[in-house]
Amino acid sequence: MGSSLGRLFRVTTFGESHGPALGCVVEGCPPRLPLDEAALARDLARRRPGQSDLTTPRREDDRPRLLSGVFEGRTTGAPIAVVIESVDQRPQDYAAMAQVYRPSHADFTYDAKYGHRDPRGGGRASARETAARVAAGAVARRLLAERAGVEVVAWVEAVADVDLAPGEVDPLTVTAADVDATPVRCPAPGAAARMAAAIEAARADGDSVGGVVALVARGVPPGWGDPVFDKLEADLAKAMLSIPAARGFEVGRGFAGARLRGSQHNDPLVPGDAPGAVRPGKHDAGGTLGGLSSGGPLLLRVAFKPTSTIARAQATCDRAGRPTTLEASGRHDPCVLPRAVPVVEAMALLVLADHLLRHEAQCGRAVTGAAPLAGDARLWSGLLP
Amino acid sequence: MGSSLGRLFRVTTFGESHGPALGCVVEGCPPRLPLDEAALARDLARRRPGQSDLTTPRREDDRPRLLSGVFEGRTTGAPIAVVIESVDQRPQDYAAMAQVYRPSHADFTYDAKYGHRDPRGGGRASARETAARVAAGAVARRLLAERAGVEVVAWVEAVADVDLAPGEVDPLTVTAADVDATPVRCPAPGAAARMAAAIEAARADGDSVGGVVALVARGVPPGWGDPVFDKLEADLAKAMLSIPAARGFEVGRGFAGARLRGSQHNDPLVPGDAPGAVRPGKHDAGGTLGGLSSGGPLLLRVAFKPTSTIARAQATCDRAGRPTTLEASGRHDPCVLPRAVPVVEAMALLVLADHLLRHEAQCGRAVTGAAPLAGDARLWSGLLP
Amino acid sequence: MGSSLGRLFRVTTFGESHGPALGCVVEGCPPRLPLDEAALARDLARRRPGQSDLTTPRREDDRPRLLSGVFEGRTTGAPIAVVIESVDQRPQDYAAMAQVYRPSHADFTYDAKYGHRDPRGGGRASARETAARVAAGAVARRLLAERAGVEVVAWVEAVADVDLAPGEVDPLTVTAADVDATPVRCPAPGAAARMAAAIEAARADGDSVGGVVALVARGVPPGWGDPVFDKLEADLAKAMLSIPAARGFEVGRGFAGARLRGSQHNDPLVPGDAPGAVRPGKHDAGGTLGGLSSGGPLLLRVAFKPTSTIARAQATCDRAGRPTTLEASGRHDPCVLPRAVPVVEAMALLVLADHLLRHEAQCGRAVTGAAPLAGDARLWSGLLP
Amino acid sequence: MGSSLGRLFRVTTFGESHGPALGCVVEGCPPRLPLDEAALARDLARRRPGQSDLTTPRREDDRPRLLSGVFEGRTTGAPIAVVIESVDQRPQDYAAMAQVYRPSHADFTYDAKYGHRDPRGGGRASARETAARVAAGAVARRLLAERAGVEVVAWVEAVADVDLAPGEVDPLTVTAADVDATPVRCPAPGAAARMAAAIEAARADGDSVGGVVALVARGVPPGWGDPVFDKLEADLAKAMLSIPAARGFEVGRGFAGARLRGSQHNDPLVPGDAPGAVRPGKHDAGGTLGGLSSGGPLLLRVAFKPTSTIARAQATCDRAGRPTTLEASGRHDPCVLPRAVPVVEAMALLVLADHLLRHEAQCGRAVTGAAPLAGDARLWSGLLP
Repeated sequence: MGSSLGRLFRVTTFGESHGPALGCVVEGCPPRLPLDEAALARDLARRRPGQSDLTTPRREDDRPRLLSGVFEGRTTGAPIAVVIESVDQRPQDYAAMAQVYRPSHADFTYDAKYGHRDPRGGGRASARETAARVAAGAVARRLLAERAGVEVVAWVEAVADVDLAPGEVDPLTVTAADVDATPVRCPAPGAAARMAAAIEAARADGDSVGGVVALVARGVPPGWGDPVFDKLEADLAKAMLSIPAARGFEVGRGFAGARLRGSQHNDPLVPGDAPGAVRPGKHDAGGTLGGLSSGGPLLLRVAFKPTSTIARAQATCDRAGRPTTLEASGRHDPCVLPRAVPVVEAMALLVLADHLLRHEAQCGRAVTGAAPLAGDARLWSGLLP
Repeated sequence: MGSSLGRLFRVTTFGESHGPALGCVVEGCPPRLPLDEAALARDLARRRPGQSDLTTPRREDDRPRLLSGVFEGRTTGAPIAVVIESVDQRPQDYAAMAQVYRPSHADFTYDAKYGHRDPRGGGRASARETAARVAAGAVARRLLAERAGVEVVAWVEAVADVDLAPGEVDPLTVTAADVDATPVRCPAPGAAARMAAAIEAARADGDSVGGVVALVARGVPPGWGDPVFDKLEADLAKAMLSIPAARGFEVGRGFAGARLRGSQHNDPLVPGDAPGAVRPGKHDAGGTLGGLSSGGPLLLRVAFKPTSTIARAQATCDRAGRPTTLEASGRHDPCVLPRAVPVVEAMALLVLADHLLRHEAQCGRAVTGAAPLAGDARLWSGLLP
Repeated sequence: MGSSLGRLFRVTTFGESHGPALGCVVEGCPPRLPLDEAALARDLARRRPGQSDLTTPRREDDRPRLLSGVFEGRTTGAPIAVVIESVDQRPQDYAAMAQVYRPSHADFTYDAKYGHRDPRGGGRASARETAARVAAGAVARRLLAERAGVEVVAWVEAVADVDLAPGEVDPLTVTAADVDATPVRCPAPGAAARMAAAIEAARADGDSVGGVVALVARGVPPGWGDPVFDKLEADLAKAMLSIPAARGFEVGRGFAGARLRGSQHNDPLVPGDAPGAVRPGKHDAGGTLGGLSSGGPLLLRVAFKPTSTIARAQATCDRAGRPTTLEASGRHDPCVLPRAVPVVEAMALLVLADHLLRHEAQCGRAVTGAAPLAGDARLWSGLLP
Repeated sequence: MGSSLGRLFRVTTFGESHGPALGCVVEGCPPRLPLDEAALARDLARRRPGQSDLTTPRREDDRPRLLSGVFEGRTTGAPIAVVIESVDQRPQDYAAMAQVYRPSHADFTYDAKYGHRDPRGGGRASARETAARVAAGAVARRLLAERAGVEVVAWVEAVADVDLAPGEVDPLTVTAADVDATPVRCPAPGAAARMAAAIEAARADGDSVGGVVALVARGVPPGWGDPVFDKLEADLAKAMLSIPAARGFEVGRGFAGARLRGSQHNDPLVPGDAPGAVRPGKHDAGGTLGGLSSGGPLLLRVAFKPTSTIARAQATCDRAGRPTTLEASGRHDPCVLPRAVPVVEAMALLVLADHLLRHEAQCGRAVTGAAPLAGDARLWSGLLP
């Protein structure tokens, strides 16, 4: 159950880091959507290890194979299965860890839950599982672009103690090309260089660093989401906290906003571009009000802890409960942030695709002049600043 | 769909702030659990308005009526329905707002989604809906206590710019009695007084303040949760962000942890009290590793924005998109934090009760000397510091 | 979990036969649909006991109270809660049965599952629970009528060994008024009289009889349903077998069709009324092909066993496993068929409403000249004979 | 969504009849269960085409590849993915049908729903999809055998107008070996020979025949299932009607029981073998009462229509709505019954595995002398005749 996400646009992932293959099944995708393996490969290439000096040199080709649900370049409405075969498995790298729990890793908790220890590595806890999410996210990206004009861009906003200055990146205009211009995936070149230096310093010390990824979704019309448990921000929070190493989530002003007064934090509503339309005049709410999208840009941030597998010696216990010391070998990222960017995008895309379908199921699709059960069509346009 | 939460221990809420009644249905509760209306009323009393000068004087009795699922003081295994009739409705207080969207409130987004505006108030977006969650949470509390010895305590950690000092509250020992000793529900009396002053100052200005609630769950055994999308921290994040006005979530060190190095952040594993047992030596991971509970105390924080309904004049638009100014009347909390404490507890209890049942369904219940499919029983005891 | 049905149009029921109240919560209903308590009461009146000499004289007013989700006569999109308070409880009628298991009743299996025995009667197993289904079905009926022009009619086709003659009722034209013209709810007066006689004879013997209910849904457009597990006929089969005392389900020719050859059973496709449209030339498939509706009338039959609670002495055991004899008192229907008709309709309505929303979510709503992702609009009209 | 089944033991299938591969993902399987590809292959071999003269000569190796969830011969608790690569695709056989709808096949309804026509054949509607179900069912079979001692056997009970005589097969003792002793999978050799002759006669005529499969599940303890919508018989009905060509379902006496009186149909309860235990004295209820298993053998029957693809000329329409005549070529089964037997078993196994986990989640596992929340342990043994 826990490997599936979404109610209508639903993805199930499978596969362990060192198993023969991993993949996903996407159910509920509308038919006749253009899709091919190249679209999946594009997003997967951004997540792949070995893209730069900042990431693990471990080679994973991540070549996606579409097994079903697509015929002659278009979705059929049937489940879309994607399989990525494993290459470059080196289980021997992990032999030393087979009987020892890595601190702050899932080794111990998996053993406690399932009663076994996979000596080949992290199993489902490995970042490798996120390749399946990115493949599914690429399908969602296509759906959102074709059907609603929604665009999602994420970037690295902080690494260790290096932060972007306020306003250094404009969420209303930043593009994926801006983000990919630096290996660290921070669209501000100066900050990116300082972040890269922080990562290199940690690697040199056999250590690791964490950081923050920010994301904007532009073009989400007002009204997506659900008022109570399945608030748009709640589903996004879950999706983000499901990424390995994620430890925090904010929408809009988040924790900083908790220090403000209502008169400061509240976003006034102002007339929109279209006659009769309204839109938020600023974006401290981050694009959602009461669990529903407001038509403003959706803005969120995700905190990632430093990679738990490090080369430095650490105190821990073995499976028998005896104290020991672990010096991990293997090829690990000193910082997951650059590769987390496409994963954060994928998770947002999956949530938005699901809520697109959910909204249309209950409230219909708004089209100019004809939305009999769905509220005022005027509300659906001209809302972005 | 969006008004239901949980897969096995599943709650559905219904009711609008100014409708005739609200309530919940809890499905999946094990049979023969002691339960009565008094147990529900205890938790509801903590959420009720009018408890102190710090909260809205609006009167809501929140008297729960058990309609089903309980017979002679014990659950039967059938759905448990709870209804709370409304009293003290004053729809006239809201008349002025019927055609105008309150800034940073759900008025506009509900209208955009559903095509109607409830002139009686917030509908499903009202904090009143959370009474149903607290009632359901009281059932979960009973289940967790009886079946697993789990205890959940939340408290106010910050209001506006008033923070607790590091270590001022010890999550390993803080009790509900400590929390309820001050009207602001902060167990440190000095800080509590400063928080109360901040709330009073905001009220005097016709304004509002936000803040942060912290929570600990003690006694959760290692292994609850799920490795991928339904990570324990992911389901908690969703549950917390589904609370009205919640804007951020952290587990363990959260955003602050993103600034650390792995060698600082990683929690060593140390021998536990029982022979062969292990436990985390410190708690920066906040009690979860890879989506599964570690046996350490579960630690999380939730950021709340300042109440959006304030008395001060604000720029906004009416339903026709015309600019206007709104001065809200009505009886609103200048700060939701004191009353959010039982709601944060309820949401954690609901998530934990669900994962208790999910864990036992897949992995069995660990009992000393007999856990054939469920991992080593030795891991299940003596883990808390 | 097991008290909820549907993925998008989702109903949860609660309440025991002799508890203070029962009811349902309907999630996912589109907003702005006309709905009031009178619409629910109309359908409930058909299920109520005491309508004629053929049914139990037990009085249940079944007066529905709408607690949420409707404002000024229209749905709001929020969960719709309906509560029906109990009247005329006579638990003393059941005292004799408190320690004894009624043969072929759920007394024994509930005790085995939950470890308790409700001395007040059938609990969730009582036919009384179906009142909540009928209330929810009335909401679905409204949605299907307004949004898709779908009409559902059920009738009694057999009681004991009294069958309708082939062609005696025409599913393409039979109306609810025809059905309700006789107390037994069989639209063929001659057969109805023989059925009534069979019921009276059983009652006179302190015994009971079973029978068959048939149902037609007219106006379902082609394409509703899902190809694999959630086939339209599969979801209908589940819905029907979930009715107390249901023991069999057929779609189209059902078991009789298993004796035919393909050349006999196959329905040719013939041109429809609209240009380019096609439709089934006969209806042995019962309106579904491969799990999807074909545009032809949906035809199904449900078999009900004879009521298990009878007045005649029966051999059974008590809770301690000792053999004993039971003579049930209380007021029980000698035949559930007449009152099962509205329940069978309700279950079909709930399934169809869910698939209406599911279809539109994935494939869009077909409207003349504009169905970009949804297949040819021409297929959506003129298909019924 | 519609390609997934089960709440806790959950299977998702993917793949089209003529695509590159098909398969399934099984979520929720308990860890440490012995499992390997050979166990899957055994069940798949029974479903494979070309086993005898009675089935299509089309070659499908159905060699299952386990991609995840199993390590060193035991399940890990992670999703179990199985992929079966396609061989022997002959799309040219289907070219003639690309623009023409086969009567009583899903060609037309898929086109109506999704707006496309797969010229390669049946897509998701093909019987080939059931290979994925059988693979998943093999996992469920292992779980049920190991954890609860449950055994499931199905057989062909009727083909065309050839029926088994009453009592010719004893559900309490029939074995899979008995069933597989004849190519038609009917354990009564005389009837089997007559059924084979009926199939051969249909094939000689370019025609097809239908029939009925019966199934028994032995060893299901009392209490599995759920009282309202997810009745055990309701979930079984859905599972069975989801099989291609299934048109009817009965539990226990089914439609024939609707003709009986209560005093005939009711099963007395008699003392069981263990002290204090009770069991049904006969099995007209088919092993379920009120949606819960009774401890008696679970007995059900499924009606299959004759194969819709036949060689004889049939009247139909093309995609433009023009009348035409179709003579199907290709290699099709004149009767699906022999190969439906393992599919019917798989569907029952999937439903029972899910309810096993659901029951234990809510009510705990009954063990002698220790079932604190789960009812009397004495009820769990000695119940089968």
